[in-house]
Amino acid sequence: MALETVSENRCFGGVQGVYRHESAACNGPMKLAVYLPPQAEKGGRLPVVTFLSGLTCTEENFTVKAGAQRVAAELGLVLVAPDTSPRGQDIPGEDESYDFGSGAGFYLDATREPWSKAYSMYSYVTEELQALVAEHFPADPARQGIMGHSMGGHGALTIHLKNPQTYRSCSAFSPIVAPMRVPWGRKAFAGYLGEDESAWRPYDATELVGERPSQARILIDQGEADQFLAEQLRPELFAEAANRVGQPFELRLQPGYDHSYFFIATFMEDHLRHHAEALKG
Amino acid sequence: MALETVSENRCFGGVQGVYRHESAACNGPMKLAVYLPPQAEKGGRLPVVTFLSGLTCTEENFTVKAGAQRVAAELGLVLVAPDTSPRGQDIPGEDESYDFGSGAGFYLDATREPWSKAYSMYSYVTEELQALVAEHFPADPARQGIMGHSMGGHGALTIHLKNPQTYRSCSAFSPIVAPMRVPWGRKAFAGYLGEDESAWRPYDATELVGERPSQARILIDQGEADQFLAEQLRPELFAEAANRVGQPFELRLQPGYDHSYFFIATFMEDHLRHHAEALKG
Repeated sequence: MALETVSENRCFGGVQGVYRHESAACNGPMKLAVYLPPQAEKGGRLPVVTFLSGLTCTEENFTVKAGAQRVAAELGLVLVAPDTSPRGQDIPGEDESYDFGSGAGFYLDATREPWSKAYSMYSYVTEELQALVAEHFPADPARQGIMGHSMGGHGALTIHLKNPQTYRSCSAFSPIVAPMRVPWGRKAFAGYLGEDESAWRPYDATELVGERPSQARILIDQGEADQFLAEQLRPELFAEAANRVGQPFELRLQPGYDHSYFFIATFMEDHLRHHAEALKG
Repeated sequence: MALETVSENRCFGGVQGVYRHESAACNGPMKLAVYLPPQAEKGGRLPVVTFLSGLTCTEENFTVKAGAQRVAAELGLVLVAPDTSPRGQDIPGEDESYDFGSGAGFYLDATREPWSKAYSMYSYVTEELQALVAEHFPADPARQGIMGHSMGGHGALTIHLKNPQTYRSCSAFSPIVAPMRVPWGRKAFAGYLGEDESAWRPYDATELVGERPSQARILIDQGEADQFLAEQLRPELFAEAANRVGQPFELRLQPGYDHSYFFIATFMEDHLRHHAEALKG
C-alpha cells in the first residue's frame, strides 16, 4: 500500500510523521500519525503501541497534546495514532453531530446503509492499519499494544479483548466501557449497527470481558472530576464484569482530573511504561 | 485588577488555568494561561517563568503543546503564558497578515497611529502582567525568568536585557535576535514604530546586548533544519555581539530540528531546569 508523507518533524531524537493513504475499509483517504523513536535508526523492529482517540479528534490531538514522544523515545516504542473515522463520504448527516459520523467512528464495522460503505474502523485498525504499519515502519507485529481515550478507550478495550494475541497489552484513559448502556454508545450502535442489540454485544467491552477475558492486566485511568463519568463512562460496570471473570485489571480513580488532554498527559508516562513492560523481550 | 476564570484543569498535580482580564495597555480584554505546580498548595511564593509565544500564537499553543507542566510540577515553577497581541481592535489591516497586527505584537510599545492605542505588549508584559500575576497567584516577583519562541524569543531576550533585575534568567527557542536586520522585524518595526530606525534599537536584542549585557547566562536552542533560520533568525548575529561584550550565553544548534513545537517540547525540560537553577534560593 502506498503511503504519502504529509509532514515529518524531528522530536525527542526521533521522527514524528503524519501520513496519508487510500483506505479500502474507509472508502477513501485516511491520515495517521506515526512516531519513530531514536532506536528505529539502529535497524530491527520495535514494539508498537496504537493510540485510539476520542470523539471529535483526528490523528493530531494525541500527537501534539499527549507528551507521549518523550517517553516513547526513552522506551523505544513506535506510536501509531489513526484518525477516528472516515472523512468526506458525503453521507447525509455525516457532519451534523459531534458524537456520530465524522470524528465518531466508534471502532466498529457499520452494517447499516449508508454508513456500511465506509465506516469500518474496526477492520481499518485491526487489518488495514496493521498491514500498512508493518510494511512501512520498523514495528514488530509480535509486540503490539493498544490504548485509547474515551471513545478510543472503548476501541482499545474491545480490540484487545477480541484480539489478545495481536494486541498483547491494553490501557485506557476515561474509556466508554459499556456502550450498550450509555447514551453515546446507544446512539452510535443504533445508527451504525441497527436496532437489534444482539449485534451490539461484540463491541461492548463490559459484555466482551465477561465472555472472553484476556490474560493481560488492563490499566485504566479515570478522572473523578470528569464531566462524562456518571452518564457516559461508568467504569464500575467494567470493573464488576472483570472481577466476576478474573480479568486482571487496575482501575485508578484520579481525584480532581477531568476528561481533557491535561489529564491524559499527566498519566501518559505510566501507560507507556505499562505497555513497554508487557511487550519487552 | 479583576481576573475572570475561563478554564481550570488539573494537570501533573497542579492546575492549568486560562484567565481573562481587562488590559489598559492593550485597550481591551486579554487572555493568559497560568500553570500552578502542586507546590503552590503549600503556601508561600514560587519562582515564575513567563513564556512569550511566536507569530500567530495565542496563550494556548505553549499550554497544550510544550509539555512544560510536567517539568514545572517537578521543579515547583509557576508558568505564565500571555497572548501575543491585543485582539479585536478594529484597526484596518489588523487581521490581514500573519506577521503584523493580531498575533504579532512583537513585545514592543507601538508609537505609530493607530497601533499605539492598543499595541503595547512591552508595557503589558513588563508592567500590567507583572502586577496581575503577583496579585492573583503565588508567584515570587523576586524570582522571575523569561523565555520565548521565535518572535517570543525576541521578546524574552529584549525584555531580559532591559530588565535584568526583574527577569533574572532568560532562554529562547529559535529567537528573532536581530529584528532590525531581518524581514519580519523590519516590517513590524516600521509599522509599529515608524521609519526612524533609531527608535527601533531598544527592541533589537543584538543592539541591546552590545550596550547593556546582563550577568545571566542566556540559553538559546536553534534547530538547524529550521526553515526560518537563514533569513529571519540568524542567531550568529547575537552570538557575535554577545561575544564582543562578554555576555554569558550558550547557543546550541540542534541538528535535524525545525521551528515547530515538536522542537520546543524536546528541549523544554533543559530550559526549565536552566531557569530553576538560576532562580533557586
